[in-house]
Formats: sequence, C-alpha cells, structure tokens
Amino acid sequence: MRFLRVNMSTKNIHSEDVPQEYAGLGGRGLTSIMINKEVPATCNPLGPENKLIFAPGYLSGTPLINTSRLSVGAKSPLTGGIKESNVGGTVSSSLASLGITAVIVEGQAAKEECYFLKIDKSGQAVLVDAAPYKSMRTYALVEKLAAEYGDKTSITCVGPAGDLLLSAASIQTTDNDGRPCRAAGRGGLGAVMGSKGLKALIVTRGGKAAEPLADPEVFKGAAKAYAKAVKADEFSGVVLPEFGTASLVETINAVGAFPTRNAREGRFEHAAKISGETMAETIKKRGGKTTHKGCAQCIIDCSNEYVDQHGDYITASLEYETIWSMGGMIGNANLDAIARLDFLCDDIGLDTISTGVAIAVAMDAGYKEFGDSKAAIEMVEEVARGTQFGKILGNGPAAVGKHFSHDRVPVVKGQSIAAYDPRAIQGMAVTYATSPMGADHTAGWVVDQNVEEFGGTLDRFSAAGQVEASRHAQIHMAVVDTIGLCDFAQTGMATPEGMQNVYQMIAAKSGQAFGEDDWQGLGLKVLKAERDFNRKAGFTNQDDRLPKMFYEEPLPPHNKVVVISDNDMDSTFEF
Amino acid sequence: MRFLRVNMSTKNIHSEDVPQEYAGLGGRGLTSIMINKEVPATCNPLGPENKLIFAPGYLSGTPLINTSRLSVGAKSPLTGGIKESNVGGTVSSSLASLGITAVIVEGQAAKEECYFLKIDKSGQAVLVDAAPYKSMRTYALVEKLAAEYGDKTSITCVGPAGDLLLSAASIQTTDNDGRPCRAAGRGGLGAVMGSKGLKALIVTRGGKAAEPLADPEVFKGAAKAYAKAVKADEFSGVVLPEFGTASLVETINAVGAFPTRNAREGRFEHAAKISGETMAETIKKRGGKTTHKGCAQCIIDCSNEYVDQHGDYITASLEYETIWSMGGMIGNANLDAIARLDFLCDDIGLDTISTGVAIAVAMDAGYKEFGDSKAAIEMVEEVARGTQFGKILGNGPAAVGKHFSHDRVPVVKGQSIAAYDPRAIQGMAVTYATSPMGADHTAGWVVDQNVEEFGGTLDRFSAAGQVEASRHAQIHMAVVDTIGLCDFAQTGMATPEGMQNVYQMIAAKSGQAFGEDDWQGLGLKVLKAERDFNRKAGFTNQDDRLPKMFYEEPLPPHNKVVVISDNDMDSTFEF
Repeated sequence: MRFLRVNMSTKNIHSEDVPQEYAGLGGRGLTSIMINKEVPATCNPLGPENKLIFAPGYLSGTPLINTSRLSVGAKSPLTGGIKESNVGGTVSSSLASLGITAVIVEGQAAKEECYFLKIDKSGQAVLVDAAPYKSMRTYALVEKLAAEYGDKTSITCVGPAGDLLLSAASIQTTDNDGRPCRAAGRGGLGAVMGSKGLKALIVTRGGKAAEPLADPEVFKGAAKAYAKAVKADEFSGVVLPEFGTASLVETINAVGAFPTRNAREGRFEHAAKISGETMAETIKKRGGKTTHKGCAQCIIDCSNEYVDQHGDYITASLEYETIWSMGGMIGNANLDAIARLDFLCDDIGLDTISTGVAIAVAMDAGYKEFGDSKAAIEMVEEVARGTQFGKILGNGPAAVGKHFSHDRVPVVKGQSIAAYDPRAIQGMAVTYATSPMGADHTAGWVVDQNVEEFGGTLDRFSAAGQVEASRHAQIHMAVVDTIGLCDFAQTGMATPEGMQNVYQMIAAKSGQAFGEDDWQGLGLKVLKAERDFNRKAGFTNQDDRLPKMFYEEPLPPHNKVVVISDNDMDSTFEF
Repeated sequence: MRFLRVNMSTKNIHSEDVPQEYAGLGGRGLTSIMINKEVPATCNPLGPENKLIFAPGYLSGTPLINTSRLSVGAKSPLTGGIKESNVGGTVSSSLASLGITAVIVEGQAAKEECYFLKIDKSGQAVLVDAAPYKSMRTYALVEKLAAEYGDKTSITCVGPAGDLLLSAASIQTTDNDGRPCRAAGRGGLGAVMGSKGLKALIVTRGGKAAEPLADPEVFKGAAKAYAKAVKADEFSGVVLPEFGTASLVETINAVGAFPTRNAREGRFEHAAKISGETMAETIKKRGGKTTHKGCAQCIIDCSNEYVDQHGDYITASLEYETIWSMGGMIGNANLDAIARLDFLCDDIGLDTISTGVAIAVAMDAGYKEFGDSKAAIEMVEEVARGTQFGKILGNGPAAVGKHFSHDRVPVVKGQSIAAYDPRAIQGMAVTYATSPMGADHTAGWVVDQNVEEFGGTLDRFSAAGQVEASRHAQIHMAVVDTIGLCDFAQTGMATPEGMQNVYQMIAAKSGQAFGEDDWQGLGLKVLKAERDFNRKAGFTNQDDRLPKMFYEEPLPPHNKVVVISDNDMDSTFEF
C-alpha cells in the first residue's frame, strides 16, 4: 500500500510505502492525523504549504457494501481550521483498488497553470496539462474527459468556483453513471484544489491491487451478515430507496426544527411541496428514477434522478440538505427550482449547503425577497461568471454577512449549520458548536436520539444528556469516516452484534485484534489531532460557540433558544 | 464631572456623576477600561450590545497646550477586538469645557432612524432627527449644520461609509476652521457610530464648566515650561510647522522602510515627488498654507491646506501616513491625486490608511495597475455609491484579500500596518503584532529608536532590544492617549524634567500625588484591560503575529525579513 505524493510546484510525483505510523488508518483518520503533522497550522490555506489529501476509507476496496467514502483533508479556507470533507461516488473504491492509500497534493502550480492528475490501471500517475479546461463547468468537463479517456474512470474535479478559489467551493466526483454530482461540499476544499492548480483527478476504475485481507473468510462472513442487517432495516432497506434522504423533510418540519427563511422560523408552511413524498411522486410521474445506485458497492440506492416535465435530466441526487438549503432556508417552495439550484451548484462546484445559506443571509439582509427562486438561480450563476457579488456569495454565508453588515449568519467557525435548527434539537447545538470541522451535521448527528418519531428519548429542548450524546456521536463518526462506510449503512451496526461484525472486519483486514476500546481510542485519536491543529491555528473555546441568534431569538413554533451553557460546550471534549 | 449616557434604543439621555472607579482617567484609559467592563467581548460590534464612547483626554480642557485629543472607544468591527481611535480637532476641548468626561452611546436605533446628538452651551444634550442627512458626505453635512447651528460647534460625524456600516469607516471631526478633515480613522468605529443610528455629535464650543484644577498655579507653571520645551524642540518647533508629518517621507524612504506597491519594496523611486519638501513647495507656489492650526490649543501647527493649481482648497491636512497609503503603497507619485484621495476619504468617512492599503491589495491581486491614481479615485468613489466592489473596499484590506483570494495582505488582527515596513524597522514588527489595537503605528512608535537619522541606537534589522523598546513605547503611549496629549507635543517630555512637568500637571489637576510609578502603572492597567477584552473575545498568541509575507519575503533594497521570534513576540506583554 502506498502514498502518492504529487508536488504541484516541482511536478514531481513520488510513490512511497505507507509508513508504519499510519498503519490501520484510512479516510478521515489518515487525513486529519497527517494534516496535523505535515501542514503548518497557521499557513495560508490557499498557499503552497497547505496539502490536499485524498484518502479512501480503511475498508474501501474490500468486499463490504457501501464502503464508498473518500475523505478529502486540508486546512480549510472557509473555517481556517482542519477539514475533512467526505464524498461517495466511485473514486474511493477506484483508488483503493489500485492500492493507493492516499494521494497527497503538495506545493502549488504557477497561477496560470492547470493540470489533471491521471492514474492509470497500473497505478501509474502523471500530470497532464489542463490549461484549456480551466474554469470549465463540471458536467462539460466530465463529458470531454469521457470522450478522451473513456468511461472507465472516476473523475474528481473542481468547477469555476474552485478555479476562482472561493471558500464555498466543493470538490465534485462522478457517480456510478459518470456524472459529477457527488460533492465533497463542506469547508471550501474546492478552493484548495483550485489553488494547487489541479482541475481533476482521473482515476482508472477496476484496479486489482487492493490491499489483501489478512483473513478473507472471516471478513466475508462478517460483511455478509452486515449487508443483511442493512437490508433488513426499515430506514436503509425501505425508506431510503423509496424517498431518499428527502424523507426527513416532513418529520423535521413537523417537529419545528426545519430552519426556514434564514432560521427565523422552525417550520416551513410549504414543506409538503418539497417533501420526500412529493419529490418521489413528481419523479415517478415524469419518468425519472426515485431509486438509483449513486455510489460503488451501494445496496441502499438512496440516490435519485430528478427530471423536468419532459422527462429530461435535471440533477442527481436531490438530497434532504439541499432541499432544505435551497428550499425552506430561502423560503422557496418550488421543487423544480431547488433541483435546478442543486444542478448548478454541482456544475459550478459549490457546496449546496453553504450556498443556500449564503443566499438566505443575503435575502435576510434585504438583498432579494425570500422565496424568489429566480433571483437565487441568478445569484448562483453570478458565481460562475465571477462577478463581484458572485465572488462574495461563493465565499459563503459569513462573507455575505460581512458584506451586508448583517449579523444573522448561522455559522460556526465560518461554516454554516445544516438542516436541523439547534434550538429545536439541542444536541445539534453541541455538535455544531464543538466539532473541529465547524458547524457540520454529519460530524455528530444526534437527531435520532432527540426526535421521538425516530425513537429518541432525550428531551430535545433541554440540555440534559446532549453533551454526552454529541460527544459519543462525534467519537463514533470519526471512526465511521475513517473506515469509509456510508453514513446510511450504519443501520448495520445498530446492534451489539452489528458492531462486532465491524470490529471483526477491521481485524480481518489488518490482522490485528480490534474491539470496542480500539474503536473508541481511534475516534479520540482523530478528534484530538483535529483539535490540536485548530488550537495551533489559534482557535479557543470562544470558537466553540453558536452565533448569538440561536441563544437570543426564540424559534417559532416552540419559541425555544439554545440552552447549552458555555461550560457544557467546553466539557464536550475535556479529554 | 459627568458621563452622558445616550441610549439609542430608548432615546433616553442620562447624566451621571463619574463613578469613583474612573477618577483620574480620561481618553483611552477611560474608554478601554469601560469597554472591557461594560461591553460583552463576544458581542456583535455592530449590534446594540456594543458601546461607543467619546472621551476627552484627562488633560483636555486644561490650560496645557496640545491637549486636543479625543479617544473614541468600542469593540471594533475591523479587528473584532477592543479599539481606541484617537483624533484631534476641537471636540475634545469642547466636551471637556462642558464638564463632560465621556459620552457613552448605547443600544441601537431602528435601521431607518438617524439622529444628531446636540449638546448645547449649558451641557444639555438632545437627540435630533437626522433622517434627511443619512448617507450625506461629511463636507456637505458640516456646511448644512453650520448654516443651521452656527459655527461655534465641534461636529463629529460619519459619512456614507459609516452609514453603510463598512469596517474601514472613520469618524470625522471638524478642525479649527470647521472642516471635517480630522479622522478617528482606525478600527472602523465609523461603522459602530453608523450602527447606532448616530450621524453626528454637535458640541457647542467654549463651555465654561471644565473640571477645576486642584492646584491651578502649579499646573500653569508646569504647563508653561512644557510649552516652552515643545517650541524649543527642532522637530515640533521647526520641522513640523514647515513640512508637517510629510517630512518623514524622505527619511523613511531613504532607509528603505517605505512600504511600496503593497509592500513589495521598501523604497519608492518617485518618493521625491511626494515628499514633504515637494508638498511644501507646491502649496507655497499655489498660495495654500504650509503651516496651519488644525486643533484646539495647538502651538505646533503641523497642519496644512493643500490647494490645486487655481489655489482652490483640496484638503487639509495632508499627512505622512496618507501620502504613503495613497502614494507609495499604491505606486502613485501624483501628489494632487493623493490630496484628492485624502479629501475623498474625509468626505466619505473612510480611514485613509486602511483604504489606501485596501486599494494596494486589490492592485497587487491584479484588479488594477499600481500607480493608476484615476482607478484609485474611482474605487473610493464606489464606496460612497455603495456598489458591490465599493462595499468590499470599504471593509478594508482583509476583505479585499478574501475577495480576490489574495494573501499578500499586510494586516494584523484585520487592521493594516502603517507607513513603516517592519522588515526594515524590526521594532515596528513588535508593535504591529502585539498591540491590542491591531497593527497601529501610534500604539508604540519606535521608529526614532531604530533610525540613526533620528538618533536611534538600535540595530533596526536585528531583534536585539526591540521587544523592550516596543513594550516601553506601548505602555508610554497608553498613558499619553489617556491624558489626551498630541503625539507630536511629546517633544516636551523628552527630558526627565519634561516628564516631571507632566507628572506635576496630572497631580495638580487631580489633587493626588503622581509620579513615574503611577505613569507606568496606569499604562499597564490600560493595556491589561485591553488584552483582557481581546482574550475574552477569543484572541490568542496566534493573533499577535504578522502575516507571512513579512517573515518570508525579503524587502528590497536591504532584503531583510522580520526576525522577531514568536517567543519574543509573546514576551512583550508577559506581565
């Protein structure tokens, strides 16, 4: 197994064996520990000292289902702290199948330069001049690349937003059908990729050099049991295939936790028009796909293909977070417009969450009316054109707030919250505030413990138990992101037996014993590295706070505020 | 003596005796200690929790010469930390003569509201509706106000930049001739004033209620001796009246410390075209004034009136820092254009330093060519028009850097350096990095100790002695800013006898003994309060650093970088 170090200053590409200290790591564990070790915490995120690391999860490339997650790590230009941004598609499996544990992009090409990094079926990597492709949108880019290199590749790229070095720029990667619709959205890592002068990774699929398993039989047995459990679970086996993540719209809105019109309300009166049910009906009626395999080795098929009235493709996949950020958050009940905005963000290379929230902040500041989806589309188009306003929007909600001297900006460490208002689900307040990633729902999703409809037992308006729940979830997710398992496939580990299966697979890959203590220890190790980096970058406890709006403005309809004390916040990671 | 508390939310105006804890304080000492006590460090600088405090220096209103300095204090929207911005003119004397120790502006008017605070000759204050004046430029505003209220007032106001809440907005105040050309420029306090809904303070001049002196005879004796020393000094007695602060251009350029073209060079090849000598000649030839009394009780007359070819007024006073920021820093050798830019900044209500540096960063990022003074003028005009780019520029150099993803941004804590490159005068590196105010030349000006031409004995390229020099200067200046003495009138305290005169005056005002230990103790107390506030706001040692460019890019012609270590920086305030 090897690291591929690509120096964009010298154009030198170096392959090295994975050093012993990184053995047993992949995904987020690898990127975060390595960033903390190799990147000066105070460096310019868009300068040559930053590194951009692509690392398949530790279990990517194995026979386990849904191990399709790639971690992308760097110092974030959005938060100024460490960042791991996580994405599906096929690239993680492709890299792992070539025996590549990480691609580490270092240095910086000259400003006018632009390259592809092409990795062929033997794992050989080469930089290819891509100057003519600079500023190209992602759908056009992958079409050109497919024509040139065939369709047996995973393409991971930036759009104009990344080329323009904007802080809300995503890294897009192709899905099973070769469309650049899967996003490592958060943290502006597209700008880091753009700053390196790297337009795309082109990775040949179907390699045969995956790391051998220490005990293939044990692994396969556990993997089979695991897949069975995922299939048997109602959420991953029935709900997600049918409605996708959009199934959450109705529930989260019903409990008044759906941040609406820049989080002025917790319930969107038009939620039914943008719900998972409505989306599924609309897609079916028009002949699109409600069930679609987006990522390698996926058995859940939560993806979909949203089509217009003529049955023509608009976007894949329309997800809960985007339906919220481009829907309720901006007061927009037009599902077709949401789909169009989703497509535009993928095409331009923008995080849909940050971009929707940035639009919401601009609307809240009076720049445009809430609900004006035409204006929202025009605003996003401005990003691609690189207008003055487009650049502001593309730099995310905090930049927009600064521009309009407007302080209702729902961000932590510069990164926006996601589709769960922390006033109505207090556990999410803890995760948003304390995650080293900035506000991030995937870093410690404690919605299930809080919402009765999901079997939650915590009082979602009270502080009791929330810090513990968030701490546990954050430690747990640090490991899930390290092994590269899809979030939704966690249903397979809902029972003690399910967890045992996971431990068994890790051990059966590495040949080292692995149990519950190792799981916990690994999660803590990753979080400690991340917090260590952030401290060195100048973060303090003051950065582990929500913006005032959440403490001061009661959220209708329940009219609650965040009640987690600063001391409680600071106790989350007293380890 | 009393505080005037003006609540812009309720419109309540409350007069209260100065509490004992603030006895003996004025100016920066008062504003900083009070801000630290009364303003939540994590508040939104543009929200109702911030307070804007106007405090005459402790010796303002006494017979001592050049005690014309007003301190304006608040949490800064530019730095996110505590800020004291200091300005001359007549307002400090006017407030002190009315027996007003501080005007404390609290709360926040509704967005559409706009008020004047008018203080009449009996010291009575009233809020006057000023809605029709919102967005008015400062020269037009003071003309209207003079027509309405006569010319026996000191007017302290914001221009469009402050109304627009931009982070580089200044607070302008009238000079002896009633022109709004004196600026509390740094830290964006104009935005704080704008956010309160306060367009102007209109303070009647010539009040008779100044705090009585405990020992008038002793005071007058010391004040007379002090004035004599200031007159006798060559710099304050001859150089400043003749050339103003612009006399520095030739010397600082000669020693290669004149930051040129966004600090890419330390020497501007056209410096002679914008030097103090050239300026004085030009003004004389055209019939302007090279010597002019700008501030109350001034005996130095460093001010000037710069006129155009027809002898018509362009601006007063053209100062060294502006000649640099709008000259060398943007590669502009056209003195008339510099004067025009100075006027525009005063008229729009913008800090000339931050604005010039913001233009320099934009030019460095390729937005316009260095030296294009027409483009610079157009850029500043855009601020007043409130265009998208105008708002970015008006938010200062860091906002411009973010906008262009350009990291050559010479700021500390978000505030730009001034006209002394820290690579060629290492002591200024310490002051810029460690001052709680952000990069600020007046917070600890150690140019004299570093430059041989000024009698300096330190090696300006070496670290030896620089921390001590800066520490001493910063403690000293905290007291000078507290008593309200003009920076240039410090020539009167160059000798031990001069210092004794100052101690004697402070004691003769308060009736309490005052000596060297008290001076040191007061300086430390002020700095501690400021640093305490910043820590609570989330600042760490990492914020006491210069941007990388100063550590990494050797500055021609001497090709040195900043050599002060992080440990040395952190030792500055280990008290």
